[in-house]
Amino acid sequence: GFAKVDYHRVRRKGFPEVIFGSGKTADQIVELFKRLMTQHKIILATRVSKDKAAAVRQSLPELSYDHTARILYYADKPLEPRTKGAIGILCAGTADLPVAEEAALTALAMGNRVKRFYDVGVAGIHRLFHHLEQIKQCRVLIVIAGMEGALPSVVGGLVHQPVIAVPTSVGYGAHFNGLAPLLTMLNSCSSGVTVVNIDNGFGAAYSASLINQLGEE
Amino acid sequence: GFAKVDYHRVRRKGFPEVIFGSGKTADQIVELFKRLMTQHKIILATRVSKDKAAAVRQSLPELSYDHTARILYYADKPLEPRTKGAIGILCAGTADLPVAEEAALTALAMGNRVKRFYDVGVAGIHRLFHHLEQIKQCRVLIVIAGMEGALPSVVGGLVHQPVIAVPTSVGYGAHFNGLAPLLTMLNSCSSGVTVVNIDNGFGAAYSASLINQLGEE
Amino acid sequence: GFAKVDYHRVRRKGFPEVIFGSGKTADQIVELFKRLMTQHKIILATRVSKDKAAAVRQSLPELSYDHTARILYYADKPLEPRTKGAIGILCAGTADLPVAEEAALTALAMGNRVKRFYDVGVAGIHRLFHHLEQIKQCRVLIVIAGMEGALPSVVGGLVHQPVIAVPTSVGYGAHFNGLAPLLTMLNSCSSGVTVVNIDNGFGAAYSASLINQLGEE
Amino acid sequence: GFAKVDYHRVRRKGFPEVIFGSGKTADQIVELFKRLMTQHKIILATRVSKDKAAAVRQSLPELSYDHTARILYYADKPLEPRTKGAIGILCAGTADLPVAEEAALTALAMGNRVKRFYDVGVAGIHRLFHHLEQIKQCRVLIVIAGMEGALPSVVGGLVHQPVIAVPTSVGYGAHFNGLAPLLTMLNSCSSGVTVVNIDNGFGAAYSASLINQLGEE
Amino acid sequence: GFAKVDYHRVRRKGFPEVIFGSGKTADQIVELFKRLMTQHKIILATRVSKDKAAAVRQSLPELSYDHTARILYYADKPLEPRTKGAIGILCAGTADLPVAEEAALTALAMGNRVKRFYDVGVAGIHRLFHHLEQIKQCRVLIVIAGMEGALPSVVGGLVHQPVIAVPTSVGYGAHFNGLAPLLTMLNSCSSGVTVVNIDNGFGAAYSASLINQLGEE
Amino acid sequence: GFAKVDYHRVRRKGFPEVIFGSGKTADQIVELFKRLMTQHKIILATRVSKDKAAAVRQSLPELSYDHTARILYYADKPLEPRTKGAIGILCAGTADLPVAEEAALTALAMGNRVKRFYDVGVAGIHRLFHHLEQIKQCRVLIVIAGMEGALPSVVGGLVHQPVIAVPTSVGYGAHFNGLAPLLTMLNSCSSGVTVVNIDNGFGAAYSASLINQLGEE
Amino acid sequence: GFAKVDYHRVRRKGFPEVIFGSGKTADQIVELFKRLMTQHKIILATRVSKDKAAAVRQSLPELSYDHTARILYYADKPLEPRTKGAIGILCAGTADLPVAEEAALTALAMGNRVKRFYDVGVAGIHRLFHHLEQIKQCRVLIVIAGMEGALPSVVGGLVHQPVIAVPTSVGYGAHFNGLAPLLTMLNSCSSGVTVVNIDNGFGAAYSASLINQLGEE
Amino acid sequence: GFAKVDYHRVRRKGFPEVIFGSGKTADQIVELFKRLMTQHKIILATRVSKDKAAAVRQSLPELSYDHTARILYYADKPLEPRTKGAIGILCAGTADLPVAEEAALTALAMGNRVKRFYDVGVAGIHRLFHHLEQIKQCRVLIVIAGMEGALPSVVGGLVHQPVIAVPTSVGYGAHFNGLAPLLTMLNSCSSGVTVVNIDNGFGAAYSASLINQLGEE
Ligand SMILES: Nc1ncnc2c1ncn2[C@@H]1O[C@H](COP(=O)(O)O)[C@@H](O)[C@H]1O
Ligand SMILES: Nc1ncnc2c1ncn2[C@@H]1O[C@H](COP(=O)(O)O)[C@@H](O)[C@H]1O
Ligand SMILES: Nc1ncnc2c1ncn2[C@@H]1O[C@H](COP(=O)(O)O)[C@@H](O)[C@H]1O
Ligand SMILES: Nc1ncnc2c1ncn2[C@@H]1O[C@H](COP(=O)(O)O)[C@@H](O)[C@H]1O
Ligand SMILES: [Mg+2]
Ligand SMILES: [Mg+2]
Ligand SMILES: [Mg+2]
Ligand SMILES: [Mg+2]
Ligand SMILES: [Mg+2]
Ligand SMILES: [Mg+2]
Ligand SMILES: [Mg+2]
Ligand SMILES: [Mg+2]
Repeated sequence: GFAKVDYHRVRRKGFPEVIFGSGKTADQIVELFKRLMTQHKIILATRVSKDKAAAVRQSLPELSYDHTARILYYADKPLEPRTKGAIGILCAGTADLPVAEEAALTALAMGNRVKRFYDVGVAGIHRLFHHLEQIKQCRVLIVIAGMEGALPSVVGGLVHQPVIAVPTSVGYGAHFNGLAPLLTMLNSCSSGVTVVNIDNGFGAAYSASLINQLGEE
Repeated sequence: GFAKVDYHRVRRKGFPEVIFGSGKTADQIVELFKRLMTQHKIILATRVSKDKAAAVRQSLPELSYDHTARILYYADKPLEPRTKGAIGILCAGTADLPVAEEAALTALAMGNRVKRFYDVGVAGIHRLFHHLEQIKQCRVLIVIAGMEGALPSVVGGLVHQPVIAVPTSVGYGAHFNGLAPLLTMLNSCSSGVTVVNIDNGFGAAYSASLINQLGEE
Repeated sequence: GFAKVDYHRVRRKGFPEVIFGSGKTADQIVELFKRLMTQHKIILATRVSKDKAAAVRQSLPELSYDHTARILYYADKPLEPRTKGAIGILCAGTADLPVAEEAALTALAMGNRVKRFYDVGVAGIHRLFHHLEQIKQCRVLIVIAGMEGALPSVVGGLVHQPVIAVPTSVGYGAHFNGLAPLLTMLNSCSSGVTVVNIDNGFGAAYSASLINQLGEE
Repeated sequence: GFAKVDYHRVRRKGFPEVIFGSGKTADQIVELFKRLMTQHKIILATRVSKDKAAAVRQSLPELSYDHTARILYYADKPLEPRTKGAIGILCAGTADLPVAEEAALTALAMGNRVKRFYDVGVAGIHRLFHHLEQIKQCRVLIVIAGMEGALPSVVGGLVHQPVIAVPTSVGYGAHFNGLAPLLTMLNSCSSGVTVVNIDNGFGAAYSASLINQLGEE
Repeated sequence: GFAKVDYHRVRRKGFPEVIFGSGKTADQIVELFKRLMTQHKIILATRVSKDKAAAVRQSLPELSYDHTARILYYADKPLEPRTKGAIGILCAGTADLPVAEEAALTALAMGNRVKRFYDVGVAGIHRLFHHLEQIKQCRVLIVIAGMEGALPSVVGGLVHQPVIAVPTSVGYGAHFNGLAPLLTMLNSCSSGVTVVNIDNGFGAAYSASLINQLGEE
Repeated sequence: GFAKVDYHRVRRKGFPEVIFGSGKTADQIVELFKRLMTQHKIILATRVSKDKAAAVRQSLPELSYDHTARILYYADKPLEPRTKGAIGILCAGTADLPVAEEAALTALAMGNRVKRFYDVGVAGIHRLFHHLEQIKQCRVLIVIAGMEGALPSVVGGLVHQPVIAVPTSVGYGAHFNGLAPLLTMLNSCSSGVTVVNIDNGFGAAYSASLINQLGEE
Repeated sequence: GFAKVDYHRVRRKGFPEVIFGSGKTADQIVELFKRLMTQHKIILATRVSKDKAAAVRQSLPELSYDHTARILYYADKPLEPRTKGAIGILCAGTADLPVAEEAALTALAMGNRVKRFYDVGVAGIHRLFHHLEQIKQCRVLIVIAGMEGALPSVVGGLVHQPVIAVPTSVGYGAHFNGLAPLLTMLNSCSSGVTVVNIDNGFGAAYSASLINQLGEE
Repeated sequence: GFAKVDYHRVRRKGFPEVIFGSGKTADQIVELFKRLMTQHKIILATRVSKDKAAAVRQSLPELSYDHTARILYYADKPLEPRTKGAIGILCAGTADLPVAEEAALTALAMGNRVKRFYDVGVAGIHRLFHHLEQIKQCRVLIVIAGMEGALPSVVGGLVHQPVIAVPTSVGYGAHFNGLAPLLTMLNSCSSGVTVVNIDNGFGAAYSASLINQLGEE
């Protein structure tokens, strides 16, 4: 075959290999799902466009597709949180929703309770303060922002939870497709902030899930 | 001579030519002061190092030098504000002081009342809120920040004054000597924010002064 | 809802939240207009393509759309300037018109008198000098240029008004979609020039309006 | 004073304000220590050069200085780990030691047990496998690398712990002072990896400490 | 004609001029094949899209087209390896296949035995170790990777063969279309690694073939 | 009108204003031609796509269009060289033809004799030497190259004519749309080489024409 | 020897090889002068620091050194212009003098009449207009500027001479050591402008000399 | 100890671990030599400054130091070539010598015959042709160039040997410390060229040695 599926990953990492849908054909995705479905009960494919998802589901109608998150997935039973602690997902503007939902669905698929705090960017900072107490009750936070990406610094200055910052490609001009908020977040003067790649809601949720599990034990 | 002094500038722009000290020899700065002193009552030279300032003052002991602002200047009488309205100068951290003081002294030399709000960065955002009412009483704001440069966005979301944002070279790594906060400020999601070059306290104060004068009329 | 509308903004900033149309669906824009129309008498959505505007106006036929400025807006009565002082809008070439008109319509919507001086770039600098006296009668200037972006420096050297410089993405090759004129403007050797993001006519007008109001008082 | 000390931080963030030594004078650092010592029992100043540390310690001989970590600190009693779980600190080459020790001392000062695995880079990958079982017994990992920065991806593929990756400025040419490993780490194909700024051992340890505490509860 | 075909190249370089299909019209490619076919028995055109290939084959049905490799070629007889030594081609993920196959077909067309080791990236490094003995039996290795591009460093640390590293444009965000793995590979801490342009499977195979031939003599 | 046509340019610069077609509508181009045709006998519009050209020629059928050069132009009589001296135009590969022809047609329209030497890149350097005597008989040279852009340096080392180097966007990967050959040409170790913007055949020809005229006098 | 002196260059290029002093030891420069002095009557070494020049002149006291231009040179008789036409050298600010004088001395050494117009930048554009008639009497212009580098565009819009633009490293912050004016000049909207490397006064003069000679014939 | 010496490397890679001297203290280098000398007969440390070398040799006087190559090394007997085939080392200018000699000494230490062809850059291309026959007798070529880095493309177009290109940091302005020639070499239109990091003479020689050995068998 064209791929060497990493069946062993679930034992090393605690979660099966996730299919990176971008740059794969529908046929390749079908085959990967089929192989992984022989071994796993929950399988995700990220970055799957609406059309590609439809093509894959022609062969595998048992898969579900989330339009906002652009995730195609197989789950042998409905997704339900198994943790007590929650991952808080904050985003600055409504255009960040696809990234936020990629994070939310990944987190949920990995068994985490999720709380959403969307559209709380610094242009209207009272919206953040309004939800601050709820935010502080989460165990770990994912903070997503495009434009100048200032939100993680502000949040990081106010809470003692680990913050995973996600820059998004939302912006124009000197934004350079997410470079601006990426640099902002890497240079945060608030402590406790780590960063993932531009638009990488999946990766943020994956790390947040590992962290959230630590608090369950 | 090596230079064509722009005596006419005070009539076009309202303030005499300012000497950009960096990359000029002490001798050249002496000569430029001498020529300008034949026509003007207040003359600034910015970006003058301590040693160069001392060398210039050997020939021209009537000049004053501000160590933090790195400005060497001639004034025929003590600098005093002539405006009712004030320029508020905010900076995020104590390492931004040289830029803040370059702005403050320029603003003062141009006749403006100045109010300082230093070390009010977003890592401890309550410090900003604590001074917010005073800040709102200024007519125009200069907001200076290094690291991720989030402060102008936060301030811009809270006030209706024009904000002039100044990124500084304070930071390291993916800061790229001020590129990070420069991009942050250019992409601000708050309205009413314009930007000047990295570390350009002088330019921020110059524009702020023009704006402040409009409110005097 | 997917968004937390910032109704409070008009009190903090003096103008209601403006919808950033890019990256939002027509449905989301419709809903945001509906919510904002419960409270405000003038509402703007910038960066709305012709097609998206048409889709939105199917639900909300009372909205107006400006094709050049790409702004969709609601106004309970015709837009009319309320200020004595004018914002002068200069642009270097005819390809900069969309940015210039985004600025002009924003300025007008915020109540400002607007004067246009288009196609006065430095390749034929006599065109600028021809209008210089009129330009000097404005209270604040927005100077827009693509290609090498030299116009704000030239204007800034000739006038005592605050200049807000807007680089545009008009150019090719080593222009890097606006990076070239952005750097030009940030490094201006003329004093009194501040800069906004590439193609950000809206932001330039917003700041210019704040400044223009100062002169009204 | 020139600074607004954030005494409140310990309550918001669980650890007092840490002094960023770079760009501050010895006098400023002395004053900041004095003020913070009125309230806190452990205080760190990072990025303090050997000479500046000596100057500060003339006024405050009770401070300790770690040459490799370049940290100057006050502690009312010897630093001792209070956690059961350990933070594992891995680095690729011996030139990464200053960053690794900045992380180690910060982690220790925040009460964490620390395990060091140094010089285990991918050029001799058997060195990593040799320590893998011990590495897997840590609760969270900091993985530091200069040059091409491949180590965090390799580690992230082998373990289920959260990995905080730190690019260092060790390298030359197309390394661009740490840009190369920074991009490597942001694009990691292994899941569970988040990233901090180039050479930011402090920030990595701060986040790792927050995460490690979660497992203590 | 529009082109000066380099018939002499086969004598200088050992292989005829290869047509770079990108940016040429189907008509131009037809004419170049016709001219080269007067002199050579094997001719390649790389970077030919499916549609362009079909158009060219209307005039020249004797050409073959490989969809994955995007190579259109003429061969007077079936391609068969003439070397004893093999070129090993490794790639990290399945999305790197087009680059890997461009390399494989080029290598084969130049007479080399080829061994493929695909989808052996560092996220599941056991897949690499599983094939290591076979890999070590090749004479020279081409190692292809997108995302963070760590694979060549890992391979380079384990083998004594010359490694030619090929970064691919597979990735997103701070990947910058292949810049991230390109920098990774240029900064490899493993010795014996040289690098070609992003996605340049052809160039890697060309050099690998020259090297492989040295071992045949 | 939307534009201030610079009728005066022919007197200042010796050639009428040239229309930059990119980013203008067909209607705007029609109007500009109409206005310029009231005063000038030869008028060029560069960067006009095939479709836009067709639309313009519906209103102005007297215009000519060159498909390769993408130039739409008006000439009251057939273009004929008026100079004794020739401009030599060299290009490295066949994909550089559009830029080469943009230069050739501009040069011709400005009255220059033109000699073409196409597809003489350094991969087969004998092709250059083969034409060297003819190249040396030109008065000024335009040397165009994509990929690594080495040709101007090689030519510049062999001739005493002024060389105007034009980098093209032909390439991929670490070419960055022409940045690679642009830097190559700016750093040429051969003397007598100046550079214009990526793909700027027009600008190269304009300067070459000014230089060529000097030799006519 | 360590070098292969290119004695043949004077025949190919019309001027002997010029020594690039930067990165060579004084001993190497001495040897190169000695070898070149066996064949040529005028020899230049550029980028020679004051100290290195002194060291070289210990062995070769017949050499002259220009402190501003940083050129060390041998001339068998005093430098005198041999051309009727002049090269005009303009610079924007006084900090650009070293580059301007590198150009002036190179031009003179190659036999050209030189006219200097220094400190005529766009911040005080009347200074340029004041000298415009004299500038127009030159045959070719070198226009040098740091900061935003707008001067060549303005000059290029006013004259019909070929303009060679030289960006300088004079500036700070978003100037990036000359990148800002380099991009400005490459994107000039004025025709007839070509560009050389940052601070390359030598290269500009070399090309200007070739052009000036054309007018002599 | 601070380091995990990779004694095993000689078996995996055929040559012992090489010490990267930059960023290590003299003490660390002494210790590494001592440990490696227990097992190996030839040991290199690259990037060792003159002063650091002297300090190390105080403890280990049996080491040799090459000033141009900046390599400190231990060899139990004089270095002598063991191969029949030679590595040809070409460089463009005399300022590239340190990189060329780093390559030469590394190659020699690894047992290779070395032939040097220095100062054969494209500004005087006849120097290259003069040595072409000798160059063609080598088995593999290292081609080193700063400035625009065109030499590897020219050489690659003329020979059938594998070419390893090394960009150097020799240049200024838009050279960006070697970025310009690095991009040139990565985009080479000549086949058979691979690239190593800027100034990486060591890495080029290492790969060249692996390749040269293949021809010995
Ligand atoms: N959206 C995503 N962003 C980053 N990495 C991902 C994403 N989705 C999946 N992955 C990772 O990509 C790898 C799959 O690569 P491949 O072999 O090309 O399918 C898996 O190891 C996943 O952990
Ligand atoms: N710190 C500064 N940053 C930017 N521009 C400055 C600064 N100080 C002075 N200037 C401007 O630089 C110009 C002087 O340039 P020069 O002719 O080189 O002395 C003056 O027109 C000032 O307006
Ligand atoms: N300041 C300069 N800038 C650019 N090129 C120069 C300069 N000075 C001399 N050169 C060129 O550099 C080449 C010398 O390189 P090299 O062999 O390293 O001495 C000569 O061919 C000169 O034409
Ligand atoms: N000049 C050099 N450039 C690149 N890599 C080098 C150089 N010298 C030594 N190395 C490699 O750097 C590694 C040593 O890293 P470290 O553990 O930090 O000493 C060794 O594996 C060498 O193969
Ligand atoms: Mg919102
Ligand atoms: Mg502080
Ligand atoms: Mg126009
Ligand atoms: Mg080591
Ligand atoms: Mg895979
Ligand atoms: Mg060709
Ligand atoms: Mg001046
Ligand atoms: Mg030389």
